[in-house]
Amino acid sequence: MADPISTPSTSPIASVIESLKQVVGAQGWSTDEAERRSHATDWVGRFFADPLLVLKPSTTFEVSEIARICNDNGLKIVPQGGNTSLACGSIPTGQGDEVIVNLSRLNRIRDIDMFNDTISVDAGCTLASVQQAAEQADRLFPLKLGSEGSCQIGGNIASNAGGTNVLRYGNMRDLVLGLEVVLADGRILDGMRALRKDNTGYDLKHVFIGSEGTLGIVTGAVLKLFPMPSTAVAAVCTVPSLQSALDLLILCKKHGGESLTTFELMPRAGLELVFKHFPSTRFPLGELQDWQLLIEFRSNDGEERVRELFETILSQAFESELVVDAAIAQSIQQNRDFWALREGLAEADFMEGAVITTDISLPLSAVPAFMDACSRAVLAIVPTGRVIAFGHLGDGNIHFGLLQPLGSDSEQFLSRGNEIQSIIHTMALSMNGSMSAEHGLGFVKNDAVAQYRSQVEHDLMLTMKAALDPKSTLNLGKVLRIENGAFSACKT
Amino acid sequence: MADPISTPSTSPIASVIESLKQVVGAQGWSTDEAERRSHATDWVGRFFADPLLVLKPSTTFEVSEIARICNDNGLKIVPQGGNTSLACGSIPTGQGDEVIVNLSRLNRIRDIDMFNDTISVDAGCTLASVQQAAEQADRLFPLKLGSEGSCQIGGNIASNAGGTNVLRYGNMRDLVLGLEVVLADGRILDGMRALRKDNTGYDLKHVFIGSEGTLGIVTGAVLKLFPMPSTAVAAVCTVPSLQSALDLLILCKKHGGESLTTFELMPRAGLELVFKHFPSTRFPLGELQDWQLLIEFRSNDGEERVRELFETILSQAFESELVVDAAIAQSIQQNRDFWALREGLAEADFMEGAVITTDISLPLSAVPAFMDACSRAVLAIVPTGRVIAFGHLGDGNIHFGLLQPLGSDSEQFLSRGNEIQSIIHTMALSMNGSMSAEHGLGFVKNDAVAQYRSQVEHDLMLTMKAALDPKSTLNLGKVLRIENGAFSACKT
Repeated sequence: MADPISTPSTSPIASVIESLKQVVGAQGWSTDEAERRSHATDWVGRFFADPLLVLKPSTTFEVSEIARICNDNGLKIVPQGGNTSLACGSIPTGQGDEVIVNLSRLNRIRDIDMFNDTISVDAGCTLASVQQAAEQADRLFPLKLGSEGSCQIGGNIASNAGGTNVLRYGNMRDLVLGLEVVLADGRILDGMRALRKDNTGYDLKHVFIGSEGTLGIVTGAVLKLFPMPSTAVAAVCTVPSLQSALDLLILCKKHGGESLTTFELMPRAGLELVFKHFPSTRFPLGELQDWQLLIEFRSNDGEERVRELFETILSQAFESELVVDAAIAQSIQQNRDFWALREGLAEADFMEGAVITTDISLPLSAVPAFMDACSRAVLAIVPTGRVIAFGHLGDGNIHFGLLQPLGSDSEQFLSRGNEIQSIIHTMALSMNGSMSAEHGLGFVKNDAVAQYRSQVEHDLMLTMKAALDPKSTLNLGKVLRIENGAFSACKT
Repeated sequence: MADPISTPSTSPIASVIESLKQVVGAQGWSTDEAERRSHATDWVGRFFADPLLVLKPSTTFEVSEIARICNDNGLKIVPQGGNTSLACGSIPTGQGDEVIVNLSRLNRIRDIDMFNDTISVDAGCTLASVQQAAEQADRLFPLKLGSEGSCQIGGNIASNAGGTNVLRYGNMRDLVLGLEVVLADGRILDGMRALRKDNTGYDLKHVFIGSEGTLGIVTGAVLKLFPMPSTAVAAVCTVPSLQSALDLLILCKKHGGESLTTFELMPRAGLELVFKHFPSTRFPLGELQDWQLLIEFRSNDGEERVRELFETILSQAFESELVVDAAIAQSIQQNRDFWALREGLAEADFMEGAVITTDISLPLSAVPAFMDACSRAVLAIVPTGRVIAFGHLGDGNIHFGLLQPLGSDSEQFLSRGNEIQSIIHTMALSMNGSMSAEHGLGFVKNDAVAQYRSQVEHDLMLTMKAALDPKSTLNLGKVLRIENGAFSACKT
């Protein structure tokens, strides 16, 4: 693609680009090729498509001006936060005149209200910086993701991020009280309200949360804060079956209520890879079973008390033969060691070889049957493949993946990705599940709605898009496949 | 209005009505005048407008057929659940050919999933019946309203109901996982998913929740269930100021976390009326202060433990002079007695005389300044009026009301309702609050969006309405004032 900077200044597009540069000023755009390339490449380095320009506005007003100009002149906007999307939600698709609007310069913590338990932030704040600001005020902002040092609040909102604290605190959607959004035509929707109850007309913020930047550009938000739990105690258990794991979950909720923060599933095959690739990790129990759980309670009750709670639950669980073995962390270090097992799962997978992954969710009651049926289905296709299914069992969110057979060719294995994923997705759907629990659709899954949702749902989503972004200015080709959307983004 | 039954059967409208009757069958409509009148009169008996017909479909398909026929033939639908709206959200407005579609015959509990902690219900189930079904499964469905014996789940969803458990469990919106909705043109949106995480495209359910039946007719829902807390312990405290109440709230959250379920404000003037009109009630402390609180913790920790928690909090509170006096309930009976004080507030008000009420919310930090400024503002207009402001302080939701002066004329006082409410609403708005926290807008407040929201918000809501209900078939004149909406509903 021609460098826009060298585009003859008499062409109409050059004059639009000139206006855009003027909006953001000298600090707000760059000709640096490396920087530009990094903004145009997805998080895991699979796809790249060249934008006309990377803009870095520093105020909501600048974002609004950019939207107005692009919408008036037929340019497309790719809103971008930390660019950590796992579904290519924040890079160009190569289908037209795309401008990346990166929000990292909108990074002020606007306000913390200790009585209202709210924090008001710019969309470009990293998740980690919001967590830290909350912590300094002795509060918890509970969203917790692997990418928290890089991902930004605006992206978390746009993608309705999930992570490891959803069981107790909900998804990002549940943490948002107010929203400031720049609409496709540049109008600013100021909904920065910090209210726990508000029924004055339609709740517009929910239209934008989870819409992946296709209906508006989030520029600010008011978020809920929570009391900071002083105690965290984790345990690792082995269970005789997935059904026992669900029975154990009921016990944990019954006795621990909302203090249950973590209920994560760790399979034998996955943990074996963790031990192999992270030699410092160690299994705290005698023998690996097919299924292990990482369970954590957090509260302000004091360690003693939380340990008592665990003992009550586990003694009942042993009696009912719901657990085979269990270890309660005896120190902060041991708590960390237990978590390292869970955190190592995804990485160990990739260290071992090529993986075809998914991000499905199910009603919890359907998980045992799904795991069984889905394992058999994929192994019928790749008999020597290794099923690694782990994740947020407490939310019904399983990262069901297939690791390449030992000694097989990676490329050849990965070429069957769509086929394998389609089996897993279809199986999840047939059990009333979802094929995208927390990662969203971006452009890599933009045919999912047409494929896996009803015609009515698909039509309604198109209606929403047409109503709020009639010129398809915003993140075209993400979430929904819109006609004329030729996807020329290249594999890197 | 002419009785539609006697409309000559050759008129076009008569044949449409005939088709509607055929859809629901003989059980699904009635000529009984008393029943018809009750469906067409609002909950508190202020307004009435005659519908063409009251339909009682018994299946989602029948609702769909009704919508299709009405939408095709220019009839208007008034969706109705238990008809307990406090904003006239579920009665005709008298502006056109309105058909009430009452959902009480859609009243099946479809399914309870104990592992997924979800209940799947028809929209016409009463809130109480859902609470009971959950309780039978040893679970809690936490929405709690005064009208729970009559109000229906569909209405709770359409109005995003609040109530006394919001502090811990959120509004109705937060309790919905899946939704089945009949659209204006009769299409059925089947989103009855029971998933804790699902990012497969736009989350359409949130478009309909809180839209008061103006964008679709809710016919079914999947709702979240919670562990049933075994222990509830309440306390009544007197506090030296509203600011102290907020400081005390921080202490309660810090020590009690999510087990804090109730933090309600009770003013001196209100409690004096409770004691007057409910002679069996008794104040458990020495002397009334300007402000009292009802605080309750619920958990599975055992009574002993919850009492300890209260003692920890209160001893710190006494030390910091945040409370003047406090009593922790010593029995289930005493717990009930404490609650009777809070529950008596609204009723005692009305027993005393005419009241001009509101339903505002604020960031909690703004409550003390608001109470002070707003009291002064309304008393400047009605110097001998009695301010009674009480409610869900933990949510920032205050029912700020003015009781008629002793010995004054009720009608004359009530004639100043709009003026007084406007002062209160404007004050709340000026402090970043809302003029409708939990009751919604219905048709009595359908000018609120134009008056109290920004132009952009108003425009966006109209855009949504036009996109989803282009012929204005659904609940016309509710939430938004739409042109050609002449409001001829009469005061009863």
